[in-house]
Order: sequence, then structure tokens, then C-alpha cells
Amino acid sequence: MDRVAIVGASMTQFGQREGWIRELLAEAGQDCLANAGVDGDDLEHLYVSNMASGEFEGQTGIANAVAHDLDALPAYTARIDQTSSSGGAGVYSAWQSVASGASDLTLLIGGEKMTHRSTAEATDVIASLTHPAEYKHGVTLPSFAGLTARRYLHEYDAPRESLAKVAVKNHKNGVDNPHAQFQKEVDLETVMESPIVADPLRLYDFCPITDGSAALLLCPESVADEYADEYAVISGIGGATDTHVVHEREDPTVMNGVVDSSAIAYEQAGLRPDDIDVAELHDMFTILEFLQSEGLGFFEQGEGWKAVEEGVTDRDGELPINTSGGLKSKGHPLGASGVAQVYEIYQQLTGAAGPRQVEADTGLACNVGGFGNCVITTIMEAGQ
Amino acid sequence: MDRVAIVGASMTQFGQREGWIRELLAEAGQDCLANAGVDGDDLEHLYVSNMASGEFEGQTGIANAVAHDLDALPAYTARIDQTSSSGGAGVYSAWQSVASGASDLTLLIGGEKMTHRSTAEATDVIASLTHPAEYKHGVTLPSFAGLTARRYLHEYDAPRESLAKVAVKNHKNGVDNPHAQFQKEVDLETVMESPIVADPLRLYDFCPITDGSAALLLCPESVADEYADEYAVISGIGGATDTHVVHEREDPTVMNGVVDSSAIAYEQAGLRPDDIDVAELHDMFTILEFLQSEGLGFFEQGEGWKAVEEGVTDRDGELPINTSGGLKSKGHPLGASGVAQVYEIYQQLTGAAGPRQVEADTGLACNVGGFGNCVITTIMEAGQ
Repeated sequence: MDRVAIVGASMTQFGQREGWIRELLAEAGQDCLANAGVDGDDLEHLYVSNMASGEFEGQTGIANAVAHDLDALPAYTARIDQTSSSGGAGVYSAWQSVASGASDLTLLIGGEKMTHRSTAEATDVIASLTHPAEYKHGVTLPSFAGLTARRYLHEYDAPRESLAKVAVKNHKNGVDNPHAQFQKEVDLETVMESPIVADPLRLYDFCPITDGSAALLLCPESVADEYADEYAVISGIGGATDTHVVHEREDPTVMNGVVDSSAIAYEQAGLRPDDIDVAELHDMFTILEFLQSEGLGFFEQGEGWKAVEEGVTDRDGELPINTSGGLKSKGHPLGASGVAQVYEIYQQLTGAAGPRQVEADTGLACNVGGFGNCVITTIMEAGQ
Repeated sequence: MDRVAIVGASMTQFGQREGWIRELLAEAGQDCLANAGVDGDDLEHLYVSNMASGEFEGQTGIANAVAHDLDALPAYTARIDQTSSSGGAGVYSAWQSVASGASDLTLLIGGEKMTHRSTAEATDVIASLTHPAEYKHGVTLPSFAGLTARRYLHEYDAPRESLAKVAVKNHKNGVDNPHAQFQKEVDLETVMESPIVADPLRLYDFCPITDGSAALLLCPESVADEYADEYAVISGIGGATDTHVVHEREDPTVMNGVVDSSAIAYEQAGLRPDDIDVAELHDMFTILEFLQSEGLGFFEQGEGWKAVEEGVTDRDGELPINTSGGLKSKGHPLGASGVAQVYEIYQQLTGAAGPRQVEADTGLACNVGGFGNCVITTIMEAGQ
């Protein structure tokens, strides 16, 4: 079967943005089409990854609205939602649309507009994805992160500083990402002395609230060279779900969705964890970078923290993780994040990452919904 | 390529229901799995079609929640939204998941919980899918229906009674559907004398506000007989978008999304309009049944009303339309409707429609989002 190629990618400035969600979505979409020299009405399918435009802005039907704004009629449109992994779910839907033969040219745009709402309001919308039995006792996603971090540090004898070093590394990478919300370094002391949010995690262990969007253009590999000289292929992609009630999981330091989704993706790609050259992980909270790097098989369980301590995951390390700056410094506009992860891997595989460039023929993106409730793992390779 | 088969289907009682959306979704899902003798953990993908659980109920992440309720872990899950055509979009996503090889067993559940909100609140959520430039002047979906109906009656010299006869026909069909919200006949006089809502349309020209859910189980045709003796195949499916701003359309009596989506579906199936034996159309407003029956090529433009007058679309007519009772009598729980349309065609093609049974080897479902903003057409044939 023809593989699915990514022949164009874009992302907007992440941060505090003016305007409506549909304007943000159209901005990334237009950039992506322009980069590939494609008009809106060349598209056959158009997917929008977005969690909550209705809740954040009182606007629904945004896939239809954006098709209109991009002059993409009569392309088929739909919105894909899988909470904070909506972007990865959109990548999976866009992949399926091409792999099934339903579409020969699919645009995916992921985005979210959040900063016009207060932190309390945004948290309330996000917390509505958790089980009420946990939420009504005040256990929101940051609380889960704090509890899990404490367990991890205890279980694996990891120093608190190792978590802080994730933030330091990712902020350092973000300095070279012109689209990142925070393009500034932070030092270990700043992270370790920032205000406590969910003990032991502090302010700098958390990603910010962000507006932004990102887009990808996909087609069968057999026609990829019509759109781009350099392209990437999705050689493996898988999704998996974990319990909706987080406290039902046997071992809180194991992300089953990461393990299960990546097993599908590795098998499909015919690759193993040590074949991966660069990865974008969902560091909504610093602790998640450890858990994912272990769940993906990059490191043994309980050893992810050592990789950060030893610089293995630095940009010049053996396995660079979050060269984009990660959600931590780049920001986390829910529906955009999974798309922006794939954007970064695409930049790396096509040699377009500028000062962030690393040597890579294969890359992996892991997008997490909720507190690991749903996970999509995408493996990409440079086009031949 | 292996075709995609539907090997199980279910729908709940439509109407005013107690409980949460996730309970409604689980009810249809459990019934569908039980009918096919499948356990939740046999599933590879699980899609939920739903427009607005966040807005209606303050609950997001429902695909993950339902996977949990059905013991479907670690199946991949996502929510598909395309406003009132979310169900059809879900059918398309479920089809793609199997056709792409990503899943060998996919469950789709569509549902909506609406009646706990006032009509004004529900209308407000639904109207948020329209363009603000129209909505803020009070032009909601019922208004478009009234304006379009008036134009249609004028343009094609159709009698007002022909619209009422759609309601009479579909209510008559609904009497034999035990899941329908209204299982009672209405006579022409009752429709014609009901209160005006959007002149010339009256109360009985509109579908009700409804709670309910429906589900489908899909797999490659090559393994269909592992799950069911009688099954149906999706032999053609297509989606298309029309303008987001309704007043930009050249001819308000033509539904471009219907024309464009059905052209894709007919071509894929290798069938023509006169090959179709039975159809479920999206009669959210009576006028839409005329427009769709013409856009699908069943009748010439401006002639759809004559077919209803002449009984062609009656259950014992040449082309029965809405044997289920349609949205008009069955109800319209947004995310469920497109799934329930396919449920009805499945019942007809597998000979399981009981008193509603017609003679049919091929069937078609046409699900409409907004006021024709997005349309999905699905053509099905009895399995061999």
C-alpha cells in the first residue's frame, strides 16, 4: 500500500493572540497551503483538531467555517476532538483519510484560543474531561501530576532537580523556536524556587495557557513530489486509551496509553525504540516527559530521569527530546499541540529546523489526552 | 480492496431520557456489542459522534469515558463533530478506520442529550454553528428553513400541503418504529393548522428536540461472517461542504453538499440514483426532504414535492423515504441522527425492519449538518 506523506507544514506564533479561533485556524491553514503551492479548492478533505471552541468562544461548526475561509469548498470537513490529544487524533484521522483512499489531498489544522478566558475558566473547561468522581474532590490534571511526580521520585529514587532539568532543557530549546510562547532560558534555581502549584511540582513544571494553531498537508507518497522536494512519511501510527478514572490504574508511573499506542506504531513502521533519532513528547507537566520516554521504550522504567541528568535528551545528546521547546516553552493550545509536534518532526526530517536542526532520519511524536487517558504515537521518516 | 461491512447495529429509545450522555452512549454501545456477540476489549477503534456534550452537559472527553464504560480499553477513541451531521461524519471516520487498515473492528456510537435544557438554550447551542453575521440578525436554522420553503413553493409552483404531507408520511412510518419519539399519526389538517414557527412552516414541519443514541459495528467484509449471518456493506461514501454563510448560495433551493457528496458516493459504489431501493433523508424540516431527494438525483429539481403527492416515497411506493419515521417523528438527537439513519438502512437490508420492512438490496442515508453546510451520503448494499 502507498504510504502517507506529509508535504507541507506550518505553525502560527504561539502565545497570547488576538482574534477568533477561526482566524487562528485559517492563518495556519493558509500558510500551509501557500508553502506547498496548493489552493484551498484542491483539497479533498479538511480536518480541524480542536477541543472546545464552543466552550471557550461560543462558536461551533468551525470545520465548516474554516473550509469557507480557505475557499476549500466542496472539500469534506469535520472536527476531531480527543481533549488535549485532539491534535494527534487529527493526525490519525488525516492519515486514515489518505490511507483509505477517501482523499488524495488532506489538510489538517489544529488550534485552540484560550487566553481570553481566565485561568480558572480555562481550568474548568479542561477539568470537564476528567471523571466527576475525581474532579468534584478537586483532583484536576495538575493534581494528578503532583501526586504522580511524588510517587515517581519516591519509587525510583530520583532527585527533585531532575524534573526541573526538563524545564531547563526545554526552555533552552525554545529560545531557538521563533513560534514559541516563551523564548527565554530559565535556570535550575528559578524553577526550583518558583511557587508550588501541586507539591512537589512548581510553576515552572507546568506548560502555560496558550493560543495558536498548526497545520499539515498530507497525500499518498506516490504523488508527494508534486507538492514538495523534501517530504516526510508517516511510517507508523497508533492510538490507545487508558482508564477514564485515573486512580484505577495499577501503577501511576506507567502510562499504558503510551505503551500500547507506540507498540502499534513501532510494529507498523518496522522500527524499534532505538531506531528513533528525535522525539517530541507531551511535556504538559515535566513529570510526563519521564513517563513517556520510558513508556516509549527509550529508557527502562524508572530511568528516564537519568537520561535528562546525563544530557542524553539534550539537543546535542544521543536522543534529542522536545527540540521545539516542548509544550513547556512553546505553549499548549490544546488542539494545536499534537499537530505542532508533528510539524517539528517534519522540520527536522526535511532539514528545515534552522538553529534547532539535529541529525535525524526518523522521528516520533507522542500526544497525550487528559492524564494519559488517550495517547497517539506517530512515527515519521524522511521521504526517499 | 476489501469493502467495509456493517455487522451490528443498535439504537436506544429516542425521546426524553434520564441520565447523562455517557450513559446513553454506553446503552447503544452495549446493545450493539451484545447483538454481534463481541466484547468491548475486542474493539480496536471506538468513535463517538456528538456535537456538544460540553455545552449541553459540561462533560467533555466522552469518547474516553465511554471506552471505559464499555471495557473497551485499550481501543483507540476519538470524538467526531460535524454539528447536526456528526453521526454521518462518524460513519465516514469509522469507515476510514477499517478501509485504511488501522482497525479490524470499529464501534461507532452517536448520541446527544438535549431535553434537560430549555428549547431556547438548545437553540442557542445549535445556532452557534451558523455565521454570526446571520445569527445576530436572528436568522437561525428554522428561519432559513422558512425562507427556503417559501422560495421553493413559489419557484416550483408547489402547494403548501405538499410540505405537510412529508410530515404526515413520516409520522405514519414512525408508528411502526418502537424507538421513535412520536409513535403517532398526524393528519393533514393538524399539520396545516399547527402554530406558525417560521412562515410558511408550522410546528409540525419541524423535528423535535430529542435525547438518544445509536451504534454500528464495522469490520472488513472478508471477516463479516465471523460476527453476523446477515450484514450490509458500505459500497460508497462521500462528504462535501457548502458555504458557511447561507445567504451566499446562488440558489437556495439547491443543496450543493447533497449533490457533491452523493456524486462521490455513487461513483464509488458504481450505482446511479435509480438503483437505490430505500433512503433515509435528513428531514429536520419538511422542506429538506424535497431538496435532498432532488439533490440526490431521485427526482428532477423542483419535482420532489410531486413524488410525495403521488405516494412515490410512501413505504409501499417505488422509492420509500424515511421508513424509520425520519427525524420528524423519530426525533433528532444531533450526534445520533446520522448513525440512526444507517441503522435503519441496515435493518432494511438485513430484513430486520419488522413492520417497516420494504424490499431493498441497496439503500442510501443522507445526513445534513447546519443548513446543508456539510453533508455525508452513505450508500449501502446487502452483504453477499
